[in-house]
Amino acid sequence: MPFSILHTGHIELRVADLERARGFYVDVLGMVETEREPGRIYLRGIDEPFHHGLTLRKADSIGIGHYALRVSKPEDLDSLYELHREKGLPTRKIPEGQEKGQGEALRVEDPAGFPVEFYHSMEHADALIGKAAYRRGIEVMRIDHITNYTNETNKEFDYYVKDLGFASSSHMIDGKGVVQRMFIRRKQGNHDLGFLRGAGPRNHHIAFWVKDWPSIIRACDTLTMSGYRDKIECGPGRHTPTDFSIYFRDTEGNRVELYHEDRMMTDPEYDHVQRLPASAPMVDYMRGHPYWGMPALPSYVDGFPVESIMDGSLKPSTPPIPA
Amino acid sequence: MPFSILHTGHIELRVADLERARGFYVDVLGMVETEREPGRIYLRGIDEPFHHGLTLRKADSIGIGHYALRVSKPEDLDSLYELHREKGLPTRKIPEGQEKGQGEALRVEDPAGFPVEFYHSMEHADALIGKAAYRRGIEVMRIDHITNYTNETNKEFDYYVKDLGFASSSHMIDGKGVVQRMFIRRKQGNHDLGFLRGAGPRNHHIAFWVKDWPSIIRACDTLTMSGYRDKIECGPGRHTPTDFSIYFRDTEGNRVELYHEDRMMTDPEYDHVQRLPASAPMVDYMRGHPYWGMPALPSYVDGFPVESIMDGSLKPSTPPIPA
Amino acid sequence: MPFSILHTGHIELRVADLERARGFYVDVLGMVETEREPGRIYLRGIDEPFHHGLTLRKADSIGIGHYALRVSKPEDLDSLYELHREKGLPTRKIPEGQEKGQGEALRVEDPAGFPVEFYHSMEHADALIGKAAYRRGIEVMRIDHITNYTNETNKEFDYYVKDLGFASSSHMIDGKGVVQRMFIRRKQGNHDLGFLRGAGPRNHHIAFWVKDWPSIIRACDTLTMSGYRDKIECGPGRHTPTDFSIYFRDTEGNRVELYHEDRMMTDPEYDHVQRLPASAPMVDYMRGHPYWGMPALPSYVDGFPVESIMDGSLKPSTPPIPA
Amino acid sequence: MPFSILHTGHIELRVADLERARGFYVDVLGMVETEREPGRIYLRGIDEPFHHGLTLRKADSIGIGHYALRVSKPEDLDSLYELHREKGLPTRKIPEGQEKGQGEALRVEDPAGFPVEFYHSMEHADALIGKAAYRRGIEVMRIDHITNYTNETNKEFDYYVKDLGFASSSHMIDGKGVVQRMFIRRKQGNHDLGFLRGAGPRNHHIAFWVKDWPSIIRACDTLTMSGYRDKIECGPGRHTPTDFSIYFRDTEGNRVELYHEDRMMTDPEYDHVQRLPASAPMVDYMRGHPYWGMPALPSYVDGFPVESIMDGSLKPSTPPIPA
Repeated sequence: MPFSILHTGHIELRVADLERARGFYVDVLGMVETEREPGRIYLRGIDEPFHHGLTLRKADSIGIGHYALRVSKPEDLDSLYELHREKGLPTRKIPEGQEKGQGEALRVEDPAGFPVEFYHSMEHADALIGKAAYRRGIEVMRIDHITNYTNETNKEFDYYVKDLGFASSSHMIDGKGVVQRMFIRRKQGNHDLGFLRGAGPRNHHIAFWVKDWPSIIRACDTLTMSGYRDKIECGPGRHTPTDFSIYFRDTEGNRVELYHEDRMMTDPEYDHVQRLPASAPMVDYMRGHPYWGMPALPSYVDGFPVESIMDGSLKPSTPPIPA
Repeated sequence: MPFSILHTGHIELRVADLERARGFYVDVLGMVETEREPGRIYLRGIDEPFHHGLTLRKADSIGIGHYALRVSKPEDLDSLYELHREKGLPTRKIPEGQEKGQGEALRVEDPAGFPVEFYHSMEHADALIGKAAYRRGIEVMRIDHITNYTNETNKEFDYYVKDLGFASSSHMIDGKGVVQRMFIRRKQGNHDLGFLRGAGPRNHHIAFWVKDWPSIIRACDTLTMSGYRDKIECGPGRHTPTDFSIYFRDTEGNRVELYHEDRMMTDPEYDHVQRLPASAPMVDYMRGHPYWGMPALPSYVDGFPVESIMDGSLKPSTPPIPA
Repeated sequence: MPFSILHTGHIELRVADLERARGFYVDVLGMVETEREPGRIYLRGIDEPFHHGLTLRKADSIGIGHYALRVSKPEDLDSLYELHREKGLPTRKIPEGQEKGQGEALRVEDPAGFPVEFYHSMEHADALIGKAAYRRGIEVMRIDHITNYTNETNKEFDYYVKDLGFASSSHMIDGKGVVQRMFIRRKQGNHDLGFLRGAGPRNHHIAFWVKDWPSIIRACDTLTMSGYRDKIECGPGRHTPTDFSIYFRDTEGNRVELYHEDRMMTDPEYDHVQRLPASAPMVDYMRGHPYWGMPALPSYVDGFPVESIMDGSLKPSTPPIPA
Repeated sequence: MPFSILHTGHIELRVADLERARGFYVDVLGMVETEREPGRIYLRGIDEPFHHGLTLRKADSIGIGHYALRVSKPEDLDSLYELHREKGLPTRKIPEGQEKGQGEALRVEDPAGFPVEFYHSMEHADALIGKAAYRRGIEVMRIDHITNYTNETNKEFDYYVKDLGFASSSHMIDGKGVVQRMFIRRKQGNHDLGFLRGAGPRNHHIAFWVKDWPSIIRACDTLTMSGYRDKIECGPGRHTPTDFSIYFRDTEGNRVELYHEDRMMTDPEYDHVQRLPASAPMVDYMRGHPYWGMPALPSYVDGFPVESIMDGSLKPSTPPIPA
């Protein structure tokens, strides 16, 4: 491929009350405000050496504005523009500075309707890890991944893996060949993106990397002390023998995961494929942590809308076509 | 008081399959077999320097044979015998050696029908903590407490606190003056005994002390690797800001808690009393960990029978009398 | 005994610069200021429900003003007064309120010249654990113990164990019958007091209880981030398979240990006695953590003066008499 | 570059007593024996899905046989052969199966005399993480990196970074432009290779990745229980705010690090360059963990020989040329 995607670099989150959301992400999650403009606050985790990893944007409803994949070099944006034009997917060039601190970027709509941004350049910012003054709340380090519901899992698998060069870390195929879940990576963590089969395009959660798994137990304490215990929907628990996570809602209703994975994906060919028998029952998402962990609260299956890259309207959600 | 109770020292557990249960307690929980006789296996945790902390006894059903409180000196047994005779409670003297490794003991039926043993002398055994050969499975350190359902919480509170000298670490009184939960201690941990208002006398769980809270996360891994993930009914979670626990069933169906508490009760007067308003709803036991933690599985409210100290028959269970 | 000592309850520490010391104990160790008066600041840990656990007192040099053992009931002070008068040890009655928040107390000089206070009554204060606003720095929970150098270890052993009712958790006796180290308890932790054979009376360290051993690793980070890395003299490491600690100097030069012990001493007779062969070499204190841990910095053997209970002068230090 | 190096994949270690060394790496470190042949035992960590990550080879002395970098595809070996022939560096083709389980490989001598192997193909082996039967000892997951002494740090920097495409995660340059330390990566961990300025070519240590930092505290316990406490030369401690490690000697005298790093290097341009002033004193390697941790034992500065790729003789070591 003439381009190289690095990792999920930042996410724009829709929130009803900008200051209330800022309070949660800064005081409770421990993020740092880099800059603000009317209607937007740019935040970064304490291990993010760039201008922002999360943008809070005032909007009428919750959900995802867009998610952004960083590429290796500015010219990758041209190659990606060509690719998407050839495939007939909607594209939109974003000039430098439209998103504060960011150079030129490209927004596209992926085959299932998700708003994806590609970018390379972003202003550097001070790394804050190890500074006593920035040791606050949950001390999230950086954005890690985003997981979505789509009714087009197989089409998404082809696009991300074959067209964009992602590797699968884990995917589950049912007896009819339909992908039920997929977790795909560009960085050497477990995943940059996850897709679950369901009504879509909708978001399931955004995930932050925390320093280690004991930090997630401490985060349960922090959420409880701060009055947010009842926002925890799932966990603590493990999806695999080596990760650790919890899921909870922010003050606006968006779902956040705190995530740590103890292994690195150094083998580019690593893929854990689970093939279900033809008679396998539907995937039960209430076991939020398949390795161990209590079942999730019923609200854990809720999904949230995503925006059109063209006009910011919310994309309608369609149930999966039965296989 | 002319006697001094030290702590909950051992518990006799009824199991349907002695060898299967031994496999669980030894291979998975990491206990050590000190001795066996037909129908009984005597186990101890790796920080128990005495002959046994848990006796597995073959029986037709699961439940509790008896639980045993260690006293400071042999003469305490005489004082306790007098006390129970005066109160008209059933008593039975247990000769030295009837329970392997144990000196003379006294069994009584408490006011709510629970089988309680008092003892002082027990053979010493090697302390095994810090020995590589005994680092196996969950490495439980010692028995910590037992928690029961009773329909006579107020009567039990008076007996244990006023007659036996226990201190309350926490108890919850509803708007009608009925004790809904009580956790009482003789040692300087949070509790040696717990009572929940409900149909009784029945057992809710027995609890083992583990070295630290990270050991409980490791225990979730161990249970999962060993094929017992689906036995976990509740947790991990915290009842208070300083404890940590999970609950699961053993191979026979008895409920076990792994427990660690990070604080010591050095103030003899410490008591956390919660007084509910008259209109408070019934206690919801599905929030197994009131501080934080996912709701328990529905089976978590099940209780298990306890034996008569006289003939080993199972005590009938009676629902709580409405206040 | 007609009295019952509960545990080491508070310590008065001499500091050259009161505000600088307060900054360290409050901002870095996470203690809370309860009250102050000219020349004194009263602090407590976040799990201390009493007025103070540590008093900082402005003085010309560092060292210990006195250490205080809490007793079960006010009348214990009378019994203890009699005991010390009979033994011919210096005593001094301290009226209520001389130490803020404290009722009547008794100060004595122990047989080796240490300033010991006995007290029962102290004003209650809010317990702060679990409150987000008090989650600051190392979050020390409470004072745990004090360890001193004395040239009279055997005399101290007799006094504390036989006269005052302490139990030994561990003591080391050399080939000539001289106690080289002793760690003695009233509470069910490992120790309330420690004594090392050496020039005395001098203090070696005061110790705070932290929530769990991972908090001690976090404390190393906190000390480093706050500019105090080079104050760490020893650790992290373990003295036994179940404890965990580090030692460092405060801003004034006093030595502080952070300590957690994962087991409880529920057996009143537990004692780990080490008898050295007659030919054993002198104890090497540079192995600050005998179980595992790097050797300490050379300054780790330094000791600090203690005050006379009579006039506040510093007690002269005498080397141990060769056995 | 026409080739792409993935990561440090395996290391051949020279040991005097093959079975004694196997006992240490299998029983204490928890590695698994995949295969053996006369004079060699092939081991892997529990997260290594390939035939071997460590080869123990019987030899007259300790040290390094070679270290091996995995490349993305078989053809990379041809490109690397050309590169090294052009640079005039010694090369040697290794036929498939000469090293058990491995396809064709290429060995070269790097500019400072180190024996480097490049390979792509290796037989897959079962991943063992999460299997109760392989939970033994320290449970090391995989080989992570190797750190060496060289008197040619600047030449090595140019070779690895410019010729082979490594990125620097951290390097320290003194006032005369001489690289004093360098830690360079291909995978997204902190480093695959480290070089320290000193007499060389010699090895300083090989490092294994462990699951998380609490595993390193547990490893200190395991080493102590197994009788190897006095083999620990340095740690636990941190080099940076996010890593954690200890160093110890194996039964033969080789130095092993246990290492975990909590962050991922997702930014390809990340480099932490430290420029020392001209007057800076020589680097003091006794501070084995520059962020925090006690000074190392004096033996920590020792280095170990490396082999010639041509005849297996040990390369002579030369002191660094003063800058």
